[in-house]
Amino acid sequence: MQTHIDALTELLGADQLLTGSDISERYQVDWSKEAPHMPEFVVRPRNTADVSTFLRYCSEHKLPVVPQGGLTGLAGGATPRDGEIALSLERLNGITELDKQSMTMTVKAGTPLQVIQQAAEAEGLRLPVDLGARGSCQIGGNVSTNAGGNQVLSFGMTRALVLGLEAVQADGTIVPAYNKMLKNNAGYDLKQLFIGSEGTLGIVTEVVLRLFPLARNKHTAVVALDSFESVVKLLNTTQSKFARLSAFEAMWNSFFQCSVGANPNLSDPFDEQYPFYVLLESENDALDQFQQVLFDELEAGNVLDAVIAQSGKDSDQFWAIRDSIPEVMSTIPQPYANFDVGLPVSQMEDFLDKVQSSLSERFENVESLTFGHLGDGNIHILAWTTHEDNSQAIYKHVYQLLNEFGGTVTAEHGIGYMKADYLKLCRSPEEIALMRVLKQAMDPNNILNPGRVLS
Amino acid sequence: MQTHIDALTELLGADQLLTGSDISERYQVDWSKEAPHMPEFVVRPRNTADVSTFLRYCSEHKLPVVPQGGLTGLAGGATPRDGEIALSLERLNGITELDKQSMTMTVKAGTPLQVIQQAAEAEGLRLPVDLGARGSCQIGGNVSTNAGGNQVLSFGMTRALVLGLEAVQADGTIVPAYNKMLKNNAGYDLKQLFIGSEGTLGIVTEVVLRLFPLARNKHTAVVALDSFESVVKLLNTTQSKFARLSAFEAMWNSFFQCSVGANPNLSDPFDEQYPFYVLLESENDALDQFQQVLFDELEAGNVLDAVIAQSGKDSDQFWAIRDSIPEVMSTIPQPYANFDVGLPVSQMEDFLDKVQSSLSERFENVESLTFGHLGDGNIHILAWTTHEDNSQAIYKHVYQLLNEFGGTVTAEHGIGYMKADYLKLCRSPEEIALMRVLKQAMDPNNILNPGRVLS
Repeated sequence: MQTHIDALTELLGADQLLTGSDISERYQVDWSKEAPHMPEFVVRPRNTADVSTFLRYCSEHKLPVVPQGGLTGLAGGATPRDGEIALSLERLNGITELDKQSMTMTVKAGTPLQVIQQAAEAEGLRLPVDLGARGSCQIGGNVSTNAGGNQVLSFGMTRALVLGLEAVQADGTIVPAYNKMLKNNAGYDLKQLFIGSEGTLGIVTEVVLRLFPLARNKHTAVVALDSFESVVKLLNTTQSKFARLSAFEAMWNSFFQCSVGANPNLSDPFDEQYPFYVLLESENDALDQFQQVLFDELEAGNVLDAVIAQSGKDSDQFWAIRDSIPEVMSTIPQPYANFDVGLPVSQMEDFLDKVQSSLSERFENVESLTFGHLGDGNIHILAWTTHEDNSQAIYKHVYQLLNEFGGTVTAEHGIGYMKADYLKLCRSPEEIALMRVLKQAMDPNNILNPGRVLS
Repeated sequence: MQTHIDALTELLGADQLLTGSDISERYQVDWSKEAPHMPEFVVRPRNTADVSTFLRYCSEHKLPVVPQGGLTGLAGGATPRDGEIALSLERLNGITELDKQSMTMTVKAGTPLQVIQQAAEAEGLRLPVDLGARGSCQIGGNVSTNAGGNQVLSFGMTRALVLGLEAVQADGTIVPAYNKMLKNNAGYDLKQLFIGSEGTLGIVTEVVLRLFPLARNKHTAVVALDSFESVVKLLNTTQSKFARLSAFEAMWNSFFQCSVGANPNLSDPFDEQYPFYVLLESENDALDQFQQVLFDELEAGNVLDAVIAQSGKDSDQFWAIRDSIPEVMSTIPQPYANFDVGLPVSQMEDFLDKVQSSLSERFENVESLTFGHLGDGNIHILAWTTHEDNSQAIYKHVYQLLNEFGGTVTAEHGIGYMKADYLKLCRSPEEIALMRVLKQAMDPNNILNPGRVLS
């Protein structure tokens, strides 16, 4: 490995390499909380040309590379494995252009999401990608993992907000697939190959993003319901009656109580407990329209109670109940299984019933918390037993069930390394074969994030 | 060729083949109005398995195939060329499932767009893809060409509305890439390969579509403006002030007058002529909010006049001015150049000024009409000279200019056969090389729509 360090130092300059004890824990593990693992060394290019030089060298010498952005992933995609060189994009940082008329922003891969959000807002615009890791995650990682988050229902995943990009292929070829238009049907839409492929088909170095105007206004409420059927009915109603339903976050009572209890800054907005809660947010509605829709639902008996945020502070409190995941996690025994499954909305109730009953049948003292972006068909489940480490068995058990309901093992977190063995439970053999064709065609030496996505 | 007809008759049954004089003009040319061309024969499979059998045979015998849907394309993508067998998907017709709760519809490739629109509306939902050819075009073609149309600004291209699909690869492999969720990050998003690749990477046989609730209400207006700068200002204002700006169609005066003049059922809603007109439509706004935005624009002097539709009939009349393309075309001398270019909104004015001045410099008596989906960065230009057939020279001239402004030779119509030579003017050599890698990997015998997209 020292030969390669010397050669790359010669090619790129010593300031681009970190070796030995200079490699901080930052480069050793992502937020999935796996055991940290030292990369062979870290390369931190200053620009796209350097990324190209580095990858060309790695291809020639068949050296495996793990690309790293903000390392906020939850699937082990950026955690180094044996023999891998870490490629950190953190120095490709900055906004290249903000075109207010065209409502686009061109940014380098290592730019933190929050920096982009703030730059857009300073111009009266916004990038509607938002997730808890906003301060740490980098746009290149958001694009490579097709990040989801809190605004998918109305604006789509990150994929929908990428108009163009620049990527570097495994052999060092720079692909300038820039585009600033909403519509461009000139040939294959190559950017799609690099979005969501978790760094296995190429390295995203720059991105052209679609921006939107700020919302005219926003209203937030938490409502309480009696049954899952009512939750789905409320989803359908609010989607048709609100000008723009921008969030529909479901919380089962067990999660809701756990969150309120785990976070000393939170209080339950209701006087009693209910089986289900939904945090919902609408954009561009007049307040009376927003209130009327909820009032009608109360009158009809579909909603049991509702609290409308009267201030930004209220709204922040409601969101904090949904977002107190770290606090919730700190109250449950390690290790737990942490699901990010997706299902058609129409299948969800049956699936969750089946999970409950079959987990209880299979495991002793099993407990679980359920919540998620219901409007997107994305449910998070935390499940654990008190007696022993059953988490791997719980994963296997639930993923097997999911298969019967046409669901996906990952709606937003990605496959990474940790779910690569489960891909076959939600993708057909023909799909996986075609994925291998693409991987072989674009990275024949298998140097880009090997073992992630495809095991 | 008779050997192949015999073999395929044996494999598929005689009722699936059309030969000789049984091949009507329907199978010979698309709406691009090229010269009709007889395919060797036509195959009309009844199901996906038959498509697979047919393609496997063609791959083995290296027989070129031109896939056909409703043949409403404008780029020659579905017009047969020498030696090609036409594969018509028209018999794969029907709705497999409409899941109201999940707001999805699964449909076979040969189902006409309008049938799908109506089935959704019958359930209080909608598929927000709409274009003039809705009665003839088929969803498989819409997906394969990533159709644009009138609602892209708010809902995106067809690509954004496809959740999953089934496709058949060149070698006959059926790829069941179904998915009903908004979010699914399990591996590469393979459907993207088949969307917009114009049948060159595989044949789409079934599609899972995302549906939306019907709009709460709609308001339509035509406004008159003095300058292109005002048009862009209005676009930015209405995008931020309307609940959902669903259409923003710009018409230059020459087009507007020509359309009103060419269609005896239309009248000019204004008493005098203006340099620019915009047809705009908003969803989910109260009428007074809609009126107030336009009133403020009038007060500020950015808009010179505005007429708000008072009825569905008014709105239809306004749309007819925008949609009278066949009537407009009948008034201008053949052959004309017909552009579907895309540009960043911020580049559009300079580009169009340059087109005007340089066309006048280069050609005698050149005339043109300009209109388009301005909010999407998509401009249509019709240009012609009275003296001689300059249309090919006009194409070349304008595409060369476009290159300097970062534009695309096709925003929505696609490359097909007719623009394959111009792809290199708006895609980099590295992009085209990567397109060839994909084509080679997925269709090594080059049997699927050869010569389209990649020449």
